[in-house]
Amino acid sequence: MNRGKWNSITDVPGVKVGHVTLHENSSETSACTGVTAILPHEGNTFEQKVPAASFILNGFGKTVGLIQVEELGVIESPIMLTNTFSVGAVLEGTLQYMLDSNSAIGDSTSSLNIVVGECNDSYLNAMREMKIRPAHALEALRNAESGQFAQGAVGAGKGMICFGKKGGIGSSSRVVDGDEAFTVGVLTLTNFGNKEECLIDEWLKRNGSSVKTEIEQPSTSFEDKPDGSVIIVVATDAPVNERQLKRLTKRAAIGLGRTGSSIHNGSGDIIIAFSNAYTIPHASEIPTITHTILRDDAPVMNKLFLAAIEATEEAIYQSLLHAVTTTGRRGRTVEKWPFHS
Amino acid sequence: MNRGKWNSITDVPGVKVGHVTLHENSSETSACTGVTAILPHEGNTFEQKVPAASFILNGFGKTVGLIQVEELGVIESPIMLTNTFSVGAVLEGTLQYMLDSNSAIGDSTSSLNIVVGECNDSYLNAMREMKIRPAHALEALRNAESGQFAQGAVGAGKGMICFGKKGGIGSSSRVVDGDEAFTVGVLTLTNFGNKEECLIDEWLKRNGSSVKTEIEQPSTSFEDKPDGSVIIVVATDAPVNERQLKRLTKRAAIGLGRTGSSIHNGSGDIIIAFSNAYTIPHASEIPTITHTILRDDAPVMNKLFLAAIEATEEAIYQSLLHAVTTTGRRGRTVEKWPFHS
Amino acid sequence: MNRGKWNSITDVPGVKVGHVTLHENSSETSACTGVTAILPHEGNTFEQKVPAASFILNGFGKTVGLIQVEELGVIESPIMLTNTFSVGAVLEGTLQYMLDSNSAIGDSTSSLNIVVGECNDSYLNAMREMKIRPAHALEALRNAESGQFAQGAVGAGKGMICFGKKGGIGSSSRVVDGDEAFTVGVLTLTNFGNKEECLIDEWLKRNGSSVKTEIEQPSTSFEDKPDGSVIIVVATDAPVNERQLKRLTKRAAIGLGRTGSSIHNGSGDIIIAFSNAYTIPHASEIPTITHTILRDDAPVMNKLFLAAIEATEEAIYQSLLHAVTTTGRRGRTVEKWPFHS
Amino acid sequence: MNRGKWNSITDVPGVKVGHVTLHENSSETSACTGVTAILPHEGNTFEQKVPAASFILNGFGKTVGLIQVEELGVIESPIMLTNTFSVGAVLEGTLQYMLDSNSAIGDSTSSLNIVVGECNDSYLNAMREMKIRPAHALEALRNAESGQFAQGAVGAGKGMICFGKKGGIGSSSRVVDGDEAFTVGVLTLTNFGNKEECLIDEWLKRNGSSVKTEIEQPSTSFEDKPDGSVIIVVATDAPVNERQLKRLTKRAAIGLGRTGSSIHNGSGDIIIAFSNAYTIPHASEIPTITHTILRDDAPVMNKLFLAAIEATEEAIYQSLLHAVTTTGRRGRTVEKWPFHS
Repeated sequence: MNRGKWNSITDVPGVKVGHVTLHENSSETSACTGVTAILPHEGNTFEQKVPAASFILNGFGKTVGLIQVEELGVIESPIMLTNTFSVGAVLEGTLQYMLDSNSAIGDSTSSLNIVVGECNDSYLNAMREMKIRPAHALEALRNAESGQFAQGAVGAGKGMICFGKKGGIGSSSRVVDGDEAFTVGVLTLTNFGNKEECLIDEWLKRNGSSVKTEIEQPSTSFEDKPDGSVIIVVATDAPVNERQLKRLTKRAAIGLGRTGSSIHNGSGDIIIAFSNAYTIPHASEIPTITHTILRDDAPVMNKLFLAAIEATEEAIYQSLLHAVTTTGRRGRTVEKWPFHS
Repeated sequence: MNRGKWNSITDVPGVKVGHVTLHENSSETSACTGVTAILPHEGNTFEQKVPAASFILNGFGKTVGLIQVEELGVIESPIMLTNTFSVGAVLEGTLQYMLDSNSAIGDSTSSLNIVVGECNDSYLNAMREMKIRPAHALEALRNAESGQFAQGAVGAGKGMICFGKKGGIGSSSRVVDGDEAFTVGVLTLTNFGNKEECLIDEWLKRNGSSVKTEIEQPSTSFEDKPDGSVIIVVATDAPVNERQLKRLTKRAAIGLGRTGSSIHNGSGDIIIAFSNAYTIPHASEIPTITHTILRDDAPVMNKLFLAAIEATEEAIYQSLLHAVTTTGRRGRTVEKWPFHS
Repeated sequence: MNRGKWNSITDVPGVKVGHVTLHENSSETSACTGVTAILPHEGNTFEQKVPAASFILNGFGKTVGLIQVEELGVIESPIMLTNTFSVGAVLEGTLQYMLDSNSAIGDSTSSLNIVVGECNDSYLNAMREMKIRPAHALEALRNAESGQFAQGAVGAGKGMICFGKKGGIGSSSRVVDGDEAFTVGVLTLTNFGNKEECLIDEWLKRNGSSVKTEIEQPSTSFEDKPDGSVIIVVATDAPVNERQLKRLTKRAAIGLGRTGSSIHNGSGDIIIAFSNAYTIPHASEIPTITHTILRDDAPVMNKLFLAAIEATEEAIYQSLLHAVTTTGRRGRTVEKWPFHS
Repeated sequence: MNRGKWNSITDVPGVKVGHVTLHENSSETSACTGVTAILPHEGNTFEQKVPAASFILNGFGKTVGLIQVEELGVIESPIMLTNTFSVGAVLEGTLQYMLDSNSAIGDSTSSLNIVVGECNDSYLNAMREMKIRPAHALEALRNAESGQFAQGAVGAGKGMICFGKKGGIGSSSRVVDGDEAFTVGVLTLTNFGNKEECLIDEWLKRNGSSVKTEIEQPSTSFEDKPDGSVIIVVATDAPVNERQLKRLTKRAAIGLGRTGSSIHNGSGDIIIAFSNAYTIPHASEIPTITHTILRDDAPVMNKLFLAAIEATEEAIYQSLLHAVTTTGRRGRTVEKWPFHS
């Protein structure tokens, strides 16, 4: 399947990504963390909600906001990513961001549901110090841009570790052709697995790359990190509803499995999917809403499923391909994946 | 079925409840809200986790922490209640509380999952001002006590509205007799419904009370509040596992239904249950764990189910019975339920 | 809320109900059972599927077909009810019925998903003899009719016991008024509970009836039956999708709870809901489909929720109101509910 | 990881597998189908139930029995596999088998829950003729044996097609070493996918095999079959409970994903897992039960997860490795996978 122009989640028209990154190491303090914001479309997500769904592959995680997503089938906020102990601050900052542009929320209309995903970056980041403040969430949101964006050890991915090497943010996309072309874009926050289980070399070979993993001494592999997590965000402009988006999330889980993860006990493996092919207005004078969606048996549906698998698999590998060797708390260093050509 | 000594969730040995209440009305600001903390047992909940489960009757809600509860079948933190826009602050404050007493969390051991439930108190409380700060969560936790505790318009219940009148915190318990006696205690945060649908008079009559609802002019009933929510926390000392606790949560939903709620579209109706009959240590040198639990077909199981229904039904009514007329933002007043004998 | 013309599920235009009843008692054999068929609309349900959902309040049950209903959000067959050990025969008979009128199924097109619900009627019926054969399913389907249909100890309800007295088939409906009127109809197969927990007298009084339960000697109440079950089928002509139908099923569960059931351990309490406001064609030359559905916040939605609660509650009571004293296997007799005016 | 002695599900002590196969082709009729029975342990499964769970990766399927498995966390019957239209007959036959050896079922004790999985074999089998009768289920059950059993185009796998070539029954196992060794065995009924997506060559190479897929003319690949399905049964003797077994089922789903399946729309991809490390007696004089299970963070748990992935992946490939070219209805032939060394 073909990739989109940027090979990233921003190939889905309207989707924007923004980061804020903290990196500070001294004898007294340490921060190696950040926030990443994903905006589902260019408008006001509270006023124009997007159909959405989620799937919990392994629930050792603290993502917030999914209860309401499941009940109503919509996301009405940006999707925010950060470290585990900063969920509260990012929730508050994102709330402030939304209140600033929606004066009726929590006053004359209903409240607001915010989605924040997280992974545990405590090997490199002094997570207990809670250096991420609400203002950082606003900054990540203001930094959001279309097209190309930074990947690897950046934003929420700054301190993350994947397959025993430096992970973080990775993205990829696939374009599904037909009478009408649809894009599936995936952004992952990777923080899981051991080096031995990673199948990146098979994937690189299958994709015709001359790059491969260098042989290293086993001792250089990262060993003593507790089980991590991965957050997978799937975006599409295909007209699918909340039930069909849940089907996409399960295919994204398959993409994760193809990278070699055995979905460890301590991993919060959470998938969130949305479509911006249509939106659901917050309020309306008429009691009904009309949508045109794909039939489940439309041939393009199986292609969307495959796109979700492939883009997830590649997005995870892209986090390794982009990440750089990073030093964090207590002088610990996590090396980048040892690629050579 | 018999009630426990305090007719409250604290009849389950070890369970404690604490509140912090904010009430401030001026031309410039307004707070009519609070935090309520429920401690599952007297020890360190991170070191000794309790089996737990949840059920989402209607997911128009923003409760956090339930993903991990479902995956691992345990709660490892106090259960916190507050208003919708203070979830972030309470999450952060509770995290700080837990970090203070567990130096390994997020450092040499795994991270921590915190459960925070919420309802929308924006009719009486200037929720957008986010007056609840992390320190309030710590205060509520420090205030936690055994035995009798305040109910009604207090703690997280300060600004809540139930059946169009003043609601808030309500609690009740039932004792299940047999070879061994078990207690089921329920605490509710009530913020839902219209006066017309409330079945309290039937309940009072069935329970032999001479109290009943006064006839009032329809105009005095609270009318224009958006749909609310209810958080129901079920505690027991019966030895049941996470699957059986989920069964209890569904019976608590039935208890809610018996009060007359029609589970409105905009209501976040969330039930959380735990047992403190046994605990699961955070770490262990041996790879196995042994528990003795009730058989599903033990006659006492159906009694526990009934206890969860009855205690939930009464806990909701107790929130009405305890709540006092309250004035909040913009001078709005919500009156207490018009009981007369 | 107003009832429909027939106060039954057939008030939803197009819905038909058919029964076949077996009653035979001799020294050698015994049958006190049957089959009930519910047709979602007047056309071919395989060619024109209806949006549908289900909810398992208590899963001690053997209903078949719900996995596919959840995945695809449609029902494509009649909904069949029978006793627990006749699910296989009814599945096969219904399959034959569908194959007879759809020559492509399992040949040139996909296979077929059939929904069969069940309760355990073994107190009155020699269930182990499996007297229901596939032909009985076809007969029930051929007997299906609009308008008034038999209730009580008939069809699948022939041998069922509810609240310790004779239960079986009960139905009710509510009409939701607005710019456009919608009907919610419910059919229940009742086989659960103890006499002591039944709240029918409160309901009768609330509904202005002069009928009430006679005082009887406790010994005449049915005592030693194992826990039963209830199947609740909710039909509507309101334009709602599969996610919204799941919301309706949870409200039907509340209606069950209002009758006094404490949802015993051994009860299979299963709710299935469908709308026939629109249909989804089995095959189409175009890859998309367009629907107009109600907004979740449309005022009529809360009315539909209430309608599902009220119609379920009354349908259960109607099964008691219609059922007659019945004698079955081993000369056992289950008496009708002791109403007097 | 090491394989067990038989590299099959029967490496889990006590597990037995039996087949019955129908193959008949004439101008008037056609059968190319069968039944496969999996017995969880050597005793009476109704009297001694096993902890169990299931996961629906894609619910385009008609498996029966899973509602009760989810509620009670046990399986109390053999697990039966057959074609889609024979679920009713196999349900009835298995019921008869269980009634024959348990005179109390449906008489003086509760009813019985039976698990039957299915795939659609209608390309090769005249599924509409329903040639499988209840007696075939009994025959498969009587044929059940320990140790080595037939795989490929046999039993329920007789008419199945996998990756466009002949599929059917495949099995594999892994032994997890530690202080105590545990076995994870998997049996799959494979009936899904297109040849192009199959990753068997990568797997064979990774496993050091010199066998690989022959290059063939694209025209010889099977093309016009509707989407299929796969049933995956995971057995283990590790002491895990129903919640932990659900975690295993999700890892088995990952194993399926690794074979290249993109989990097509029309595929019923169902995973069922049980442990026979301990059993739950049907009835007991004491109201409690005591179990010793693995801690979730026991190092062996991640190994069990990996074992479930690897054994599922290999079991699917084993169905291809064992299956033989098969001719069925209308003279259609599905060729075996074109391996060459």
